[in-house]
Amino acid sequence: MNQLFLFLIIIGIITLIFAGYLSLMVIRAENGTEKMHEIAGFIRNGANTFIKSEYQYLSIFVVVIAFAIGLAINHGTALAFILGAVFSMAAGYFGMRIATIANVKTAQAARKTQTAALNVAFSGGAIMGLLVVGFAVLGLGSLLLLFKGDPINIAGFGLGASSIALFARVGGGIYTKAGDVGADLAGKIEANIPEDDPRNPAVIADNVGDNVGDVAGMGADLFESYVNSIVSAISLGMLTFNVEGIYFVLILVAVGIVSSMIAIVFVKLSSGENPQKTLNYGSYVSGLLVLLGTWFLSHHIFGDYRAFIAVATGLIVGVLIGITTEMFTSSDYKRVQRIAYESLSGSATNIIAGLGEGMFSTMPPTLYIVVGILVSYYAMGGNTMPTQGLYGIALAAIGMLSTTGFTIAIDAYGPIADNAGGIAQMADLPPSVREITDTLDAVGNTTAAIGKGFAIGSAALTSLALFVSYAETVKLSTINLLYPLTLVGLFIGGMIPFLFSALSMKSVSKAANEMVQEVRRQFDEIEGILEGTATPEYDKCVAISTKAALKEMILPGVIAILTPLVIGLGFGVEILGGLMAGTIISGVLLALMMSNAGGAWDNAKKLIESGEHGGKGSAAHHAGVVGDTVGDPFKDTAGPAMNILIKLMTVIALVFAPFIMQYGGLFFKLFNIN
Amino acid sequence: MNQLFLFLIIIGIITLIFAGYLSLMVIRAENGTEKMHEIAGFIRNGANTFIKSEYQYLSIFVVVIAFAIGLAINHGTALAFILGAVFSMAAGYFGMRIATIANVKTAQAARKTQTAALNVAFSGGAIMGLLVVGFAVLGLGSLLLLFKGDPINIAGFGLGASSIALFARVGGGIYTKAGDVGADLAGKIEANIPEDDPRNPAVIADNVGDNVGDVAGMGADLFESYVNSIVSAISLGMLTFNVEGIYFVLILVAVGIVSSMIAIVFVKLSSGENPQKTLNYGSYVSGLLVLLGTWFLSHHIFGDYRAFIAVATGLIVGVLIGITTEMFTSSDYKRVQRIAYESLSGSATNIIAGLGEGMFSTMPPTLYIVVGILVSYYAMGGNTMPTQGLYGIALAAIGMLSTTGFTIAIDAYGPIADNAGGIAQMADLPPSVREITDTLDAVGNTTAAIGKGFAIGSAALTSLALFVSYAETVKLSTINLLYPLTLVGLFIGGMIPFLFSALSMKSVSKAANEMVQEVRRQFDEIEGILEGTATPEYDKCVAISTKAALKEMILPGVIAILTPLVIGLGFGVEILGGLMAGTIISGVLLALMMSNAGGAWDNAKKLIESGEHGGKGSAAHHAGVVGDTVGDPFKDTAGPAMNILIKLMTVIALVFAPFIMQYGGLFFKLFNIN
Repeated sequence: MNQLFLFLIIIGIITLIFAGYLSLMVIRAENGTEKMHEIAGFIRNGANTFIKSEYQYLSIFVVVIAFAIGLAINHGTALAFILGAVFSMAAGYFGMRIATIANVKTAQAARKTQTAALNVAFSGGAIMGLLVVGFAVLGLGSLLLLFKGDPINIAGFGLGASSIALFARVGGGIYTKAGDVGADLAGKIEANIPEDDPRNPAVIADNVGDNVGDVAGMGADLFESYVNSIVSAISLGMLTFNVEGIYFVLILVAVGIVSSMIAIVFVKLSSGENPQKTLNYGSYVSGLLVLLGTWFLSHHIFGDYRAFIAVATGLIVGVLIGITTEMFTSSDYKRVQRIAYESLSGSATNIIAGLGEGMFSTMPPTLYIVVGILVSYYAMGGNTMPTQGLYGIALAAIGMLSTTGFTIAIDAYGPIADNAGGIAQMADLPPSVREITDTLDAVGNTTAAIGKGFAIGSAALTSLALFVSYAETVKLSTINLLYPLTLVGLFIGGMIPFLFSALSMKSVSKAANEMVQEVRRQFDEIEGILEGTATPEYDKCVAISTKAALKEMILPGVIAILTPLVIGLGFGVEILGGLMAGTIISGVLLALMMSNAGGAWDNAKKLIESGEHGGKGSAAHHAGVVGDTVGDPFKDTAGPAMNILIKLMTVIALVFAPFIMQYGGLFFKLFNIN
Repeated sequence: MNQLFLFLIIIGIITLIFAGYLSLMVIRAENGTEKMHEIAGFIRNGANTFIKSEYQYLSIFVVVIAFAIGLAINHGTALAFILGAVFSMAAGYFGMRIATIANVKTAQAARKTQTAALNVAFSGGAIMGLLVVGFAVLGLGSLLLLFKGDPINIAGFGLGASSIALFARVGGGIYTKAGDVGADLAGKIEANIPEDDPRNPAVIADNVGDNVGDVAGMGADLFESYVNSIVSAISLGMLTFNVEGIYFVLILVAVGIVSSMIAIVFVKLSSGENPQKTLNYGSYVSGLLVLLGTWFLSHHIFGDYRAFIAVATGLIVGVLIGITTEMFTSSDYKRVQRIAYESLSGSATNIIAGLGEGMFSTMPPTLYIVVGILVSYYAMGGNTMPTQGLYGIALAAIGMLSTTGFTIAIDAYGPIADNAGGIAQMADLPPSVREITDTLDAVGNTTAAIGKGFAIGSAALTSLALFVSYAETVKLSTINLLYPLTLVGLFIGGMIPFLFSALSMKSVSKAANEMVQEVRRQFDEIEGILEGTATPEYDKCVAISTKAALKEMILPGVIAILTPLVIGLGFGVEILGGLMAGTIISGVLLALMMSNAGGAWDNAKKLIESGEHGGKGSAAHHAGVVGDTVGDPFKDTAGPAMNILIKLMTVIALVFAPFIMQYGGLFFKLFNIN
């Protein structure tokens, strides 16, 4: 078995070397004009400032929690936790650094050809993807080697990843939307200047936000899903099939990474084509390679194709959720068109339509997830061997996430192209450059929507697998819904995602308001700013976003971490199980609703801007902008935060399970109830 | 025991006689001017047309379902079902008829004194309240007598009540909001004419809607809660304490009705005071009388005060939820003030703030409900005797609903005062009249908000009690959350409220759009309409609302009824249990979020109209109107429909439990899984 762990470590190192190689290529690409260089510098500095302050806070947090874990659980788990946190931070840090270099290089490449621009932007994204999967398997391999394959302590690694993801997603989400909403409200709507206009003092904060939220935040999110799906599959695999159960998972992970690398190379070699098609082909390549590998693997290790079916089910469910996401958020389909149409009677009907479509959009993914659970459970023989069936569900999660390296590559490419467009605009490059970056950005929007669907689907399956691992750890065979306290847990758990969304949306409101006031102040006080003769104080706006993000991520974070502990200690392991189930259900549903509504509003606005229903400047357009603005915190702050919330709460319960088993149920002790 | 049932029947008859007496008083009150008479006639006819068409549809539905019940279950349940449906329809029909007479009499009384107006409006509301509780106990008493106290068939009565409630709430909700949103968008915003202006062709539909939705719909909703809380408490009581368990419940119900009647008389005698205070005192009177009665009853029947604690807990939780609702929706508190403040930066921030506050508002009620469950469960000894504890939860639901007669009185009084204001405006009565009706209406808004809180809280506890009764009926001792299929049920169940809300909001959008187009057409085509020289074709708008409401209530209704049956038949009793739990949790949370957000937007707009942030006509006001319009389908269509949905789905499961036990689980049979 040690050989396998070593093999995993080597795969991780190779992946990181590949990422390093691509980084060199990006860094060596052409720089562009002085003006471009200057603007990119602003963005890069803003991003660095934020991530450094964020990591300072997080370091304190990591030390405190590691200490608590060391006391309450054991030193091994504490070590795993630190490693998970540090590796997640490392992936985020390097990935974002490269993204903030790749943006200007993409803009420069776009002055030549679209192919060149796609190549640079995609390389930037691919680096993020490779860093995530590379650090993940390097960490997991090392810990498994250290702990001689005992999966218990490994959950700490998942918790480390989850904790960082929470703050990166929530903080990043608040940062980016404070910048975006603030820039839009004060600049686009009030002062009537276009998007990405260098006269807008919040424009740099807006562009920094793309990197902080959509690159680093998204990366941390998928790092967490990836790690935790592996953690839960390993522990369930160990339980049912002993070493074979672990073998299968780890080799499958390696196959996924290699497939992603091949797909990345494929995209880079064939990037002469239509960019949407190229990226799609890349997805097919990585998916098919994984399926092929799993087919052999399943037969080789288990002697049948049941594990293959479970993995394939996960992959297919992921793709189906992605397709649904597109149908609900792309202007090619009637739902977004209806929202655009409803904009004709004003903002209110636009909002009602968007909320309605968002709510409706929860149906198909829920049904896919449900079918995925059924198929993967029964395919692995859950009928006669329940634990085996649960392992099947964990395999489905892994299947969905096996090509994470490639998924992140096309996810992170979007914000880089978006940033390149911003730089082109601010540096007064010719419209042809902006046209190329806009094309790439539009492709990125679709891939981002599909990526979001994947993120939610995988969060759902991963947290279910973690939930089951938790139950195995605390030796619960039943969490009885007819026991009123389980319902108590379910109720509180269901409410947490609503509370969490409320808090994060309120944070965005507050920060955006501050931003609007600062922009107004600069327009008033700095002479020549609107004429373009004076430079705005970008740093003031960056500071507002940074401060808000850091301050506002604390309360939601504390709630997410403390709720399972408090409920577990207060009411014991069974009610904690109810709490998790409630959070998973309502978190997944809210995430789907908010992400899809947000995406639909965004594209309904773009549809109107393309000339429908009166085009730019019409009353319908005004309504469309309102919808888009409401959708911003939905799809980029609260929605994605749900993914983290459900995974974090379940992994907290899993890691602290031994502690809760020992000390949980204080309420009953207090009131003498047994 | 038969004596008790007879006693209940007599109480029911006395209550109905009291309602009849009050009706005579209302009918004999002064009529007002010719113009008032004419306008009231339009409203009355519109309401009658709608309710007659609705009942025609429903009759077919009732016959079909009764037939199905007769075949699948037994004839007794079918009979009970028909009686429940017919009594619910009767209460709605007579209550609304009186409301559409009381409106104009209130307007006339308001030409004299506020006290007189309050007296008439409150009588109108009280009649609805008395009809609801009167028909409920008359029906339950008769059926219990007929079936010799066997509570099983009685569930059919609850299902009858639920089915009618569903259509009355959903249809009524669509009707009222199509009228309201349509009238606002085309009249207030586009043509710039004030609210309740007789030149607006949709104004009659809007006023009819108040009666259809807020009187008949609300009455059917509480009729259902009331009946089902009694049904579940009886069956759990029978199970644990045998006849004593039933005795306690029925006498408690009688005490509640008598207390409500005393409170009604009290309000009528003391209505010289400040109306808000008078109504509050009435609530205290009815609540305290119930507590007093329960104190003696608990000691007399059970020999201790544990049942008293359970009942009191329910009452207190109801009051606390009501207070929270007020804090989240009244402009006296900072949350609504924040939404008004956010309106300064436009519609988008107003919407974000409202959604955030709505989500946040789920927290306190959830915690109250949870504490209520814990206290009532353990107070009744759930620790050692689980069924007894569950009976405690059912008693808490009864406690919350014991004063339903009075709760409905103050709920239904609001729309009558509102209608009176509309009539005063349209009949050109002097502003002093409108001032009085506005004062009464404002008081009604607060009581309505509190009533909504009660409706949600009672729906939550009632459906939990029904859920537990279901489990007892199908002899399930465990619904295991670790069994993946239970999670499947939970996921689907959680999704249903989202789907249901989406459908009902979409229906409102569609109907409102049709309404806007019709109003525009009339403004274009009918000469002199805006000058007030030609009468608009009110009936065309009434017809649009009627048709839309009838057509659009079908799909949501079918989903609510078929989902539990399909899941039960497909996957058996345990998964159906998971489905119910999922629906209850997400339904309660969405109901809280939507009702409170809607109420908050409404009052934020009113706060701006009172002069804050620029007052009427300002940009903030425009944003406030957008928020209010978005809130309309939230708080008056989708939100209240959630209450019905969760109760209906659980009572369907309860009634069809024997059938599902016998034939359920086709999926497993099909795939040979055992």
